[in-house]
Amino acid sequence: MELAMGVDLGGTNIKGAVVSSRGDVLSFFSNPTEVEKGKERVFDNLEANVRSACQRAGVKLSEIKCVGIGSPGPLNTKTGIVIEAPNLPGWNYVPLKDIFEERLGVPVFIENDANAAGYAEAWLGAGRGTDCMLLFTLGTGIGGAIVINGELWHGPDDSAAELGHITIKYDGALCGCGNKGCLEAYASAPATVKRMKRALARGKKSTITRYLKEGRELTTKLIHKVAREGDELCRRVIKETGTYLGIAFSSYINIFNPDIIVLHGGLSGAGRMLFDAIRAEIKKRSFSMPAKRVRIVRSRLKGRAGVIGSAGCAFKAYGISV
Amino acid sequence: MELAMGVDLGGTNIKGAVVSSRGDVLSFFSNPTEVEKGKERVFDNLEANVRSACQRAGVKLSEIKCVGIGSPGPLNTKTGIVIEAPNLPGWNYVPLKDIFEERLGVPVFIENDANAAGYAEAWLGAGRGTDCMLLFTLGTGIGGAIVINGELWHGPDDSAAELGHITIKYDGALCGCGNKGCLEAYASAPATVKRMKRALARGKKSTITRYLKEGRELTTKLIHKVAREGDELCRRVIKETGTYLGIAFSSYINIFNPDIIVLHGGLSGAGRMLFDAIRAEIKKRSFSMPAKRVRIVRSRLKGRAGVIGSAGCAFKAYGISV
Repeated sequence: MELAMGVDLGGTNIKGAVVSSRGDVLSFFSNPTEVEKGKERVFDNLEANVRSACQRAGVKLSEIKCVGIGSPGPLNTKTGIVIEAPNLPGWNYVPLKDIFEERLGVPVFIENDANAAGYAEAWLGAGRGTDCMLLFTLGTGIGGAIVINGELWHGPDDSAAELGHITIKYDGALCGCGNKGCLEAYASAPATVKRMKRALARGKKSTITRYLKEGRELTTKLIHKVAREGDELCRRVIKETGTYLGIAFSSYINIFNPDIIVLHGGLSGAGRMLFDAIRAEIKKRSFSMPAKRVRIVRSRLKGRAGVIGSAGCAFKAYGISV
Repeated sequence: MELAMGVDLGGTNIKGAVVSSRGDVLSFFSNPTEVEKGKERVFDNLEANVRSACQRAGVKLSEIKCVGIGSPGPLNTKTGIVIEAPNLPGWNYVPLKDIFEERLGVPVFIENDANAAGYAEAWLGAGRGTDCMLLFTLGTGIGGAIVINGELWHGPDDSAAELGHITIKYDGALCGCGNKGCLEAYASAPATVKRMKRALARGKKSTITRYLKEGRELTTKLIHKVAREGDELCRRVIKETGTYLGIAFSSYINIFNPDIIVLHGGLSGAGRMLFDAIRAEIKKRSFSMPAKRVRIVRSRLKGRAGVIGSAGCAFKAYGISV
C-alpha cells in the first residue's frame, strides 16, 4: 500500500487529504484559499494544507509518493502548468507542478478539478465498475469529466470534457464562454438564480420572498430549501433546471451510450424534483436503448471526490497500482 | 499478410472488396441490394457479391480469414444481430453473422456502417495517426463514428456515436428520431432540400428552377452543382447547412477536443462553401485551444471507406494484426 496526497484547489477553500492506494482517506484538511491575497499566499496556504493533512494522518511528507492537485483549468497535465483559472484571478501560465515539487520535494501531478472528481467517482464512487461514466459538476459553471474504460479522456490539449459547453439552443442565452445557448447558460447556479429572480420580478408568488426580506441571499441552496418546504415556484425553477440538464443529457446519451451520469456539487442534492425532470426529458428525447441503460445518480463521494480523485490521478500518473 | 472481405450493405447497393491486412484493396464489386425483393433476395445478393469480389481478386473464399459486414443499425456487434435497419424495411432482429457464417463458412463480424467508415478513415484515411477522430456521414440521415486511440467507441449497447442526434435547438425542428432540434433535422440531405424548397416557395430567385423545369429532381447534388455555377440562393442554402454543422461541431470540439473531424458522403464534397461556413461557426462558438487543434476535412477513402473499414473491423475482431 502506498500513500498519495490529494489536493482540491478551489476558489474559496483548499481541501487536502492523505489517500492510500486502496482508496482509504487517512486524513482530511480544509483551509481558506485567500485568492484575494495573491498567488504567493495561495501557494503558502496550499503548502500548509499539505503539511497539515500529513500531520493529521501521522505520516511524514517523505512517506508520500506523490501529490495530486486538482485545479480549475484550462491546464496542461503534461507540463503541469495552469494556463488560466477563472476562479483564481491573475493565474496565467502558473507552473504549479514545478512550484510544488520545489516546495515539497515530492512528485506532483496536476489535473482539472472536474476530471479529478470524475476519476474518483469512477475509481471508488458511483461509477465504479462501469465502462463509460460522465460526470457533471453543477455550480457557478458546469464542468465535466468523461471516463471510458477507467481512463479519463483529456483530449490532446487537455481541453476535452467541457460538458457544460454543449449548445442546447443555438440562438439562445449568451454563455460566459462567448457562445450562445450553452447548457451552462441555462442550468448553472447563476442561471437558476436568474430564472428565479425573473419569475419574482414578473410578480410570481413564492414563500422565498420571506427569506429574502430577512436579508438572506438568493442562492440555489435557498431555492432548494424553500422547494423542499413545498413552495411551488421554487419547485418549478428546480424542475426547469432539470429539464435543461435532461435536454443536454439526451444528447450525451446518444453520443456516448454511457452506463452512468453522475451529478456532483450544487443542485445535485435536490433529489427527486431535479432527477425526475431530467429523466422525463431523457425519455422524451434520446434513443430508447441507451436511455434504458443509463443511470442518473448523485455523486457518492461528494465533497471528498476532488481530493480522492487528485490522489488517484497522481497514483496513475506515477505508475503506482491501486 | 492476411485477407479479409469487407462488405458495405446499403439501401441501394451492396459493395464488397477483398482487403489485405496491409489495407490494400485487391478487388471491388458493387451490385444492387434489391431491398424491395425481400430479405432472402438481399442475402443472396450479398453472398453473390462476396463470391464475385473474391473471384475478381483471384482468391478462393477459403483463403479469406474473415468477413466484415457494415450494416445500417442499430445492431449488436457481440451477437451479430441487426436489430433494425431503417433503409432495409422488414429487417428486425436479423442474425446476419450466423446467416453468413453458415452461407460462407468464414467467420463474420458485423459493424454499424458509419463506424466501419470511421474505422477505415482512422486506419488508412484522413484520420491516420490521430488520437481522436470524429466522422460524420452526411446523407438521408447523419451518422457518426468516434475513434479514440485507434478504437471505435461503441458504448455498452453498440448505440454510441449517434452524432447526428445532438440537440442544437431544444424547441426546434422535429427529427425523425422523435426528438426536437437534432442536428439531423437541420443538416441532413432532406433538411437541406427542404430549406431550398421553402426559399423557392417564398419566391426567392435561383437558376436551379431551370433544371427543375427540365424535370430534374431537387437533390443536394443538384443544389451543389448549381451553387458551383455561381447561384446565390444555392450557395446560401449550402452555407446554412455548414452553419448548422458548425454549431454541432463546436459542441463536439468542447466535448472531445478532437484532432480531426471527417465528413463523409453527401454534401461533404461541397468544398469551400460548406467548410468555410463550418469553420466560421467553430471560431465563433468553441473554446479557442481545441478550435485551433481540430482539422475539418473530407473523407479520403470516400466510397470505399465502408468496405475497407468493415474488413478492418473484422481483422480486429478476429485478432489479426494489421
